[in-house]
Amino acid sequence: MTEQNSEKKFKIFSLNGNQPLAEKIAAVCGTKLGKSTVKQFSDGEIAVNVEETVRGYDVYLIQSTNAPVNDHYLELLIMIDAMKRASAKTVNVVLPYYGYARQDRTAKPHEPITAKLIANLLSDAGATRVLTLDLHTVQVQGFFDIPVDNLFTMPLFAHYYREKGMVGDDYVVVSPKNSGVQRARSLSEYLDTTIAIVDLTEEGNPESGYVIGDVEGKTCIMVDDILNTGQVFKTAAKTLKKSGAKKVVACASHGLLSDSAKQCLDKTDIKDICITDSVLTDESRHPKNLTIITCSDLMGEAVKRIHDNQSVSPLFTIEKKDYE
Amino acid sequence: MTEQNSEKKFKIFSLNGNQPLAEKIAAVCGTKLGKSTVKQFSDGEIAVNVEETVRGYDVYLIQSTNAPVNDHYLELLIMIDAMKRASAKTVNVVLPYYGYARQDRTAKPHEPITAKLIANLLSDAGATRVLTLDLHTVQVQGFFDIPVDNLFTMPLFAHYYREKGMVGDDYVVVSPKNSGVQRARSLSEYLDTTIAIVDLTEEGNPESGYVIGDVEGKTCIMVDDILNTGQVFKTAAKTLKKSGAKKVVACASHGLLSDSAKQCLDKTDIKDICITDSVLTDESRHPKNLTIITCSDLMGEAVKRIHDNQSVSPLFTIEKKDYE
Amino acid sequence: MTEQNSEKKFKIFSLNGNQPLAEKIAAVCGTKLGKSTVKQFSDGEIAVNVEETVRGYDVYLIQSTNAPVNDHYLELLIMIDAMKRASAKTVNVVLPYYGYARQDRTAKPHEPITAKLIANLLSDAGATRVLTLDLHTVQVQGFFDIPVDNLFTMPLFAHYYREKGMVGDDYVVVSPKNSGVQRARSLSEYLDTTIAIVDLTEEGNPESGYVIGDVEGKTCIMVDDILNTGQVFKTAAKTLKKSGAKKVVACASHGLLSDSAKQCLDKTDIKDICITDSVLTDESRHPKNLTIITCSDLMGEAVKRIHDNQSVSPLFTIEKKDYE
Amino acid sequence: MTEQNSEKKFKIFSLNGNQPLAEKIAAVCGTKLGKSTVKQFSDGEIAVNVEETVRGYDVYLIQSTNAPVNDHYLELLIMIDAMKRASAKTVNVVLPYYGYARQDRTAKPHEPITAKLIANLLSDAGATRVLTLDLHTVQVQGFFDIPVDNLFTMPLFAHYYREKGMVGDDYVVVSPKNSGVQRARSLSEYLDTTIAIVDLTEEGNPESGYVIGDVEGKTCIMVDDILNTGQVFKTAAKTLKKSGAKKVVACASHGLLSDSAKQCLDKTDIKDICITDSVLTDESRHPKNLTIITCSDLMGEAVKRIHDNQSVSPLFTIEKKDYE
Amino acid sequence: MTEQNSEKKFKIFSLNGNQPLAEKIAAVCGTKLGKSTVKQFSDGEIAVNVEETVRGYDVYLIQSTNAPVNDHYLELLIMIDAMKRASAKTVNVVLPYYGYARQDRTAKPHEPITAKLIANLLSDAGATRVLTLDLHTVQVQGFFDIPVDNLFTMPLFAHYYREKGMVGDDYVVVSPKNSGVQRARSLSEYLDTTIAIVDLTEEGNPESGYVIGDVEGKTCIMVDDILNTGQVFKTAAKTLKKSGAKKVVACASHGLLSDSAKQCLDKTDIKDICITDSVLTDESRHPKNLTIITCSDLMGEAVKRIHDNQSVSPLFTIEKKDYE
Amino acid sequence: MTEQNSEKKFKIFSLNGNQPLAEKIAAVCGTKLGKSTVKQFSDGEIAVNVEETVRGYDVYLIQSTNAPVNDHYLELLIMIDAMKRASAKTVNVVLPYYGYARQDRTAKPHEPITAKLIANLLSDAGATRVLTLDLHTVQVQGFFDIPVDNLFTMPLFAHYYREKGMVGDDYVVVSPKNSGVQRARSLSEYLDTTIAIVDLTEEGNPESGYVIGDVEGKTCIMVDDILNTGQVFKTAAKTLKKSGAKKVVACASHGLLSDSAKQCLDKTDIKDICITDSVLTDESRHPKNLTIITCSDLMGEAVKRIHDNQSVSPLFTIEKKDYE
Repeated sequence: MTEQNSEKKFKIFSLNGNQPLAEKIAAVCGTKLGKSTVKQFSDGEIAVNVEETVRGYDVYLIQSTNAPVNDHYLELLIMIDAMKRASAKTVNVVLPYYGYARQDRTAKPHEPITAKLIANLLSDAGATRVLTLDLHTVQVQGFFDIPVDNLFTMPLFAHYYREKGMVGDDYVVVSPKNSGVQRARSLSEYLDTTIAIVDLTEEGNPESGYVIGDVEGKTCIMVDDILNTGQVFKTAAKTLKKSGAKKVVACASHGLLSDSAKQCLDKTDIKDICITDSVLTDESRHPKNLTIITCSDLMGEAVKRIHDNQSVSPLFTIEKKDYE
Repeated sequence: MTEQNSEKKFKIFSLNGNQPLAEKIAAVCGTKLGKSTVKQFSDGEIAVNVEETVRGYDVYLIQSTNAPVNDHYLELLIMIDAMKRASAKTVNVVLPYYGYARQDRTAKPHEPITAKLIANLLSDAGATRVLTLDLHTVQVQGFFDIPVDNLFTMPLFAHYYREKGMVGDDYVVVSPKNSGVQRARSLSEYLDTTIAIVDLTEEGNPESGYVIGDVEGKTCIMVDDILNTGQVFKTAAKTLKKSGAKKVVACASHGLLSDSAKQCLDKTDIKDICITDSVLTDESRHPKNLTIITCSDLMGEAVKRIHDNQSVSPLFTIEKKDYE
Repeated sequence: MTEQNSEKKFKIFSLNGNQPLAEKIAAVCGTKLGKSTVKQFSDGEIAVNVEETVRGYDVYLIQSTNAPVNDHYLELLIMIDAMKRASAKTVNVVLPYYGYARQDRTAKPHEPITAKLIANLLSDAGATRVLTLDLHTVQVQGFFDIPVDNLFTMPLFAHYYREKGMVGDDYVVVSPKNSGVQRARSLSEYLDTTIAIVDLTEEGNPESGYVIGDVEGKTCIMVDDILNTGQVFKTAAKTLKKSGAKKVVACASHGLLSDSAKQCLDKTDIKDICITDSVLTDESRHPKNLTIITCSDLMGEAVKRIHDNQSVSPLFTIEKKDYE
Repeated sequence: MTEQNSEKKFKIFSLNGNQPLAEKIAAVCGTKLGKSTVKQFSDGEIAVNVEETVRGYDVYLIQSTNAPVNDHYLELLIMIDAMKRASAKTVNVVLPYYGYARQDRTAKPHEPITAKLIANLLSDAGATRVLTLDLHTVQVQGFFDIPVDNLFTMPLFAHYYREKGMVGDDYVVVSPKNSGVQRARSLSEYLDTTIAIVDLTEEGNPESGYVIGDVEGKTCIMVDDILNTGQVFKTAAKTLKKSGAKKVVACASHGLLSDSAKQCLDKTDIKDICITDSVLTDESRHPKNLTIITCSDLMGEAVKRIHDNQSVSPLFTIEKKDYE
Repeated sequence: MTEQNSEKKFKIFSLNGNQPLAEKIAAVCGTKLGKSTVKQFSDGEIAVNVEETVRGYDVYLIQSTNAPVNDHYLELLIMIDAMKRASAKTVNVVLPYYGYARQDRTAKPHEPITAKLIANLLSDAGATRVLTLDLHTVQVQGFFDIPVDNLFTMPLFAHYYREKGMVGDDYVVVSPKNSGVQRARSLSEYLDTTIAIVDLTEEGNPESGYVIGDVEGKTCIMVDDILNTGQVFKTAAKTLKKSGAKKVVACASHGLLSDSAKQCLDKTDIKDICITDSVLTDESRHPKNLTIITCSDLMGEAVKRIHDNQSVSPLFTIEKKDYE
Repeated sequence: MTEQNSEKKFKIFSLNGNQPLAEKIAAVCGTKLGKSTVKQFSDGEIAVNVEETVRGYDVYLIQSTNAPVNDHYLELLIMIDAMKRASAKTVNVVLPYYGYARQDRTAKPHEPITAKLIANLLSDAGATRVLTLDLHTVQVQGFFDIPVDNLFTMPLFAHYYREKGMVGDDYVVVSPKNSGVQRARSLSEYLDTTIAIVDLTEEGNPESGYVIGDVEGKTCIMVDDILNTGQVFKTAAKTLKKSGAKKVVACASHGLLSDSAKQCLDKTDIKDICITDSVLTDESRHPKNLTIITCSDLMGEAVKRIHDNQSVSPLFTIEKKDYE
């Protein structure tokens, strides 16, 4: 037992949420996933089994918390507890998709703020840092007192559309609902377009939709953070068309693609739907015009920078010249 | 706005774990369940809706956390958060069954202590007290720093067997595994019997079972806290019969009755299986010799005493004379 | 020393932020402000002097944290500490204006989240509840783990404009910047109008403003939460006029009215500027078309309901029929 | 189970530190001590047994933490834990003597601040309030974040000396060491005298003592907070006499009276030594000129006022007219 | 002041509980104990004096918390506080014997859970990790949220008996009471024997003992965690003999050996009593057939592995082949 | 992403309190201040902008919290929050002057303990260590549970006076008020003098001053920690002269020098006033006989030792031989 240099060693583990993405992130970091298994007993309880020592290691746990969201969160919390008790040096939680992020305020009386509850549970279990992707509202970052890096997907989508030449006055970026205008704003800056908003005059009545802003004769690029049932895109696309839009495409950071989404979206006139691989879904649930771009380079690079104590800031922007 | 007497008002709410039991407990307390709904969105996220004010109320939340255990715990945690933010005076969690209680130690290296994690999550979310029933190990009580009342089921089973006259030397209380001896010990005191233990010489090999103690010619009353797959009772019953037991019956506090349990137990020679209604299961999963006794009087009485600031201690024992 | 009924007694204290409003709130609650003084020593340190016992009382501290914002926050934190140590039963903080609320996310790398810091400081000092008015973003509510009631000013402004008959198709509610659309949305529902947004194509260049939505020939009701320098309203008003607006009025929840605001606003063509009295400003800084409506009834009623353990929910809405 | 008035009920328990004082305090409060026992097993571990329900009660625990100080603190901490888990409403710790109060700073490198450690341990165990008497330094109050009432003994000693007519120019209040001047200052105000200080030119060398201030021909009233070995008083008395003092008496708030104290003090020329009964000592250790005055009225009155939510402030002063 | 490699430097300190063991542990780690003294003042207060800098060091504090248990715990807590304030990098508490571990549940109403209180006190004072030996119940590990390594003594005893050839059918491992069966189970696996239990039909009546399981003609190896008064072993040995046992020996992890233990045990027919040196006792209290084996290699090796960030798991088992 | 040595890298930042001192401290550490700006918006809110990455760095924040004290504290708290969220490894707060240190006890009923509040706020915001200079009372160190190094100024003043030959019997060190005797005691030991105290017989009446101790014919060196309005020194100087003092000089650790101080002090007969540069003041406020000595070497050396994990203890003393 002698004095020794303390090396910064790390291990990356994946839970069951999105193993393929986790493997890609590990590859970007030049390593393989650590060995661990998560199984469910016949009574539904989860048992975590970590098959490697983590004593003194910086540990990164990758978990997308889409459906079954509660199982995925319990997997994660139990894994954090295991890591803490097994003497990991730090427990860094990587959440490509942060479930419950939309429950970020009390919209009605007596409502919980589940996104804050989740933040508290992660910290209390022993997480020492969070890395996530395109939070529903950026304020959720402030629900934590541990460092949170919230990466943005807009540069990824900007890159996607710019490569197709979809820039300038013939295009308009559209927020398909009256919230989320900031996201449309951000994408429009990359694509040199104006923005528009689809709003509903009667809450919940898709027929009451109208467009704020000018879309006539333009190709509309709808942008949202979460694509769940497809209903929002469907309604907005119809309204845009009514208002004279020439063509409609859509992108969303997180493609939850609930059971009914394919059926819903395949009936629309949306020519292209672009999502990232932050959430893993079965191919049978993919609508026909779906394009999936990967967020693994972005997230892997962030993990590397965090581990190497380099600034993560450069990942927040893309240089326009890169694409011309 | 004047000075006013502060009355102790209470409301009882049930989550989705075991509504029938919750209704019975409320009835024992002379009230009805508060109005609330818990629904799941298409992406699996839970939304809690409390439809009554709880401002200034002592609130009791009843939830059995059997399968789907993770959903049930998230329901509970979200509800606690809602109650806390809606200014409930106290948030008392009633857990007729405490899921994950068996993960109470690190049996192997790198294991979590999930029962402690759960205790921390409940406290962190805002629970101010816990009432539960027959914890797998009593030490779990010490996982909390808020008051915990852990009621016992042995008096209920003692009452059940005494009414049938099952007392004295012709009977022996048996622990079907080498842990849980304390529970057998407790029941044997009520029934004036000795105890025995079924052990396995080879871990996991049901054929290697042998009996410690004397069961020859006696009726064996096996006792356990959790009846999940029925495998433990099945193996133990076979071993007891081999060792000369005249007859075998069984009781368990919490009847999880996993999918395969009915099939497993219906093949055994166990004449009567008695459980409480702490866990709600579909009738299709009930083995043929099942008797269900209710824990609602016990738990309801405890809620009353807690609310009225009366000692809960009398509920921990039954007077022998009550039954003769 | 005998058993005694515990009465809920309360006292309301004001700090230096907005004494006139505090007096009005106390009057709504049927009481007078408690006696206390806050003075500054020659070295700038604040000394709080509470001249009444608060032992066992529910205490309400009213403080608007506008400029000098740091002094006002320290006053408040020190007062909370005093109340806690003097054995107040609860310490309820009433913030008609929540300073630093706009620093609610890390807009640029290495930025603090000061709104969260403030939330932590208040809780850590000993606040047990917060009542506030029209938070810059509703997610700030989730920065707290103590109960927070966030009242809305839109019903107050709706009432103001409805009394003037400003409803229907001749009017349009305008968000003068691309964030804050929800607030415009909410007011438009009360006034039966559509909405529009003023955006800037180049960040920070007031000349680059353009209107999203239709304002031609209509009276524009601009709505914002904070009116500080007046620059946002000035720019937006000019852009609206260019786009054909018939007339422009404006309202803002919190009238900070910085030094230059009067000069800036008096040069615009805004016919009426309506703010609440959440922030106290010197009359010399009031622009000529200013109307101040009081939030004291709303806040006082909330304090009453909180103290009486009645639901605060009714205060979140106004019945349309009330105004016809 | 119905809505009910919540009464403020209380119980007072004593631990082993100072039972006679606890009984007097209870009597002042018009009640008797609750039934509880504290015993030590053969291995030295303490077992606490509370023989009455405390569910919902305001509990007051009286413990003087003089020698054996560690046993007394563990008794107290274990009792607090028991009370918290048995659902006491509040746990109020009454410390007539606060052991370890002198270790309130790091006098030398690598030193603990044990007085702060004790404060943390009490709070962490579950204490919700502290009532104590004449802390060694008043700053220790700030070691807590729960309310602390620190009563003063100077009014008691003032009363004692005034009744004897010991006021005015013939007397001088003396601090027997260079710290503790504030205490001498306070007593001198009650007695209308000047003050003096005995200092040592060489640390630890009792022969090097000299007097700062004028004592010639006067009766010196030495005052200290803790009387442990008597060495400080002995040295100071000798120095005062050398400097021309006519007569020397002494008072100390807390009479620890270590084994050697009687022997030491009986050799001095101190005509009267007055202490309070905050610490219980065997009569065999009392020096011959000892007078014991009781702090039970003061402390009992404070307990009453705390329970009745009345201001404790009046106890901090005595009206001069009371004594004339 | 330049950038520098951060070396992991460590120091081991011993408190007064068990200096000889601490020295052995330090020797296993290839170092000597750090310089520090712990003294008691005349009033019983403990003063800790650390005579070396610990700034930036990983510090290991070795303390057995047997009698005088309260002094030993205060020594430890004060030392932790000193280390924390003196800027130790980590404070690792090594507890060869964890006093109060048996108070791990509320056996009777209103009881404390002192083992949990101790866990909280250690964490609150500043301990960052615990290393201990054969906890009374393994669940106590879950009382902590910091990492806890709980080493087992059964491999040590297995080694001891295997070297004597005490394996196979002529032997039976006996739990001398109805709890602690797991420990007997564990030892029996190493020795290839069955197990038996000694139970009492009447609580507290040693004459009522009877044996569960088969011991006739066999050598009984009794095993317990704590040997305090010797009464449990004495009673059980007598019962085993009555039931036909050929010979009785005993082992216990922690030999507290209270005052009366030697007298009690010397009267029994137990041929060999084996304990570890986890607790230091005076030779005058040792019964005549006592064998002491050391746990210093086990604990020292664990300290080394913890410091070197190597897995501690290998220490939990012994390879059977080692002994053949 | 590979295993790498973890280097201890550091950055020093200054806030607006005392930039010149911060620059000197950085120079002592062989570095320059990190780039950051702190600005105030028109509404008084502070915006912190850190222009360098701090990810993984040990960060030292230098801030003197003199007037405007509240702005300075908010600057500091916001900066700490920014550093924590930007993933600084440690956040070390350097407070050459600790504002609010005098509010360290509840002098009157219902008073806050603001010095403790400040300690809590700093810790809660994320400070991991504090380095400060001559705290008003040393007990404030115990208000923290993070490591605090409190440097002393007395060695600096001793050096100053010894160089002038001001040692021995012709001099007397005087505390200008009845508190602060320890500070005078400490300086007198360095200068081989006796001490004296100036006290007031009537609280607040400067005419009632009298001297305790012997000053006749001697040069009086008054010492205090804080020089604010100069009133204390003025009154004491007058009293000393009346009592026969030959000459009066004064020193104070922290020269706040409020607006009126120059006017007040210029009227006195104090021949030399020596302060440190812990507080930055405008030259226009300096009294004519002012000497400023720097604390930058002392504080810089402490920062170096803290970063290099060397003992800070040597800085607490000066060797007498250094000066002869």
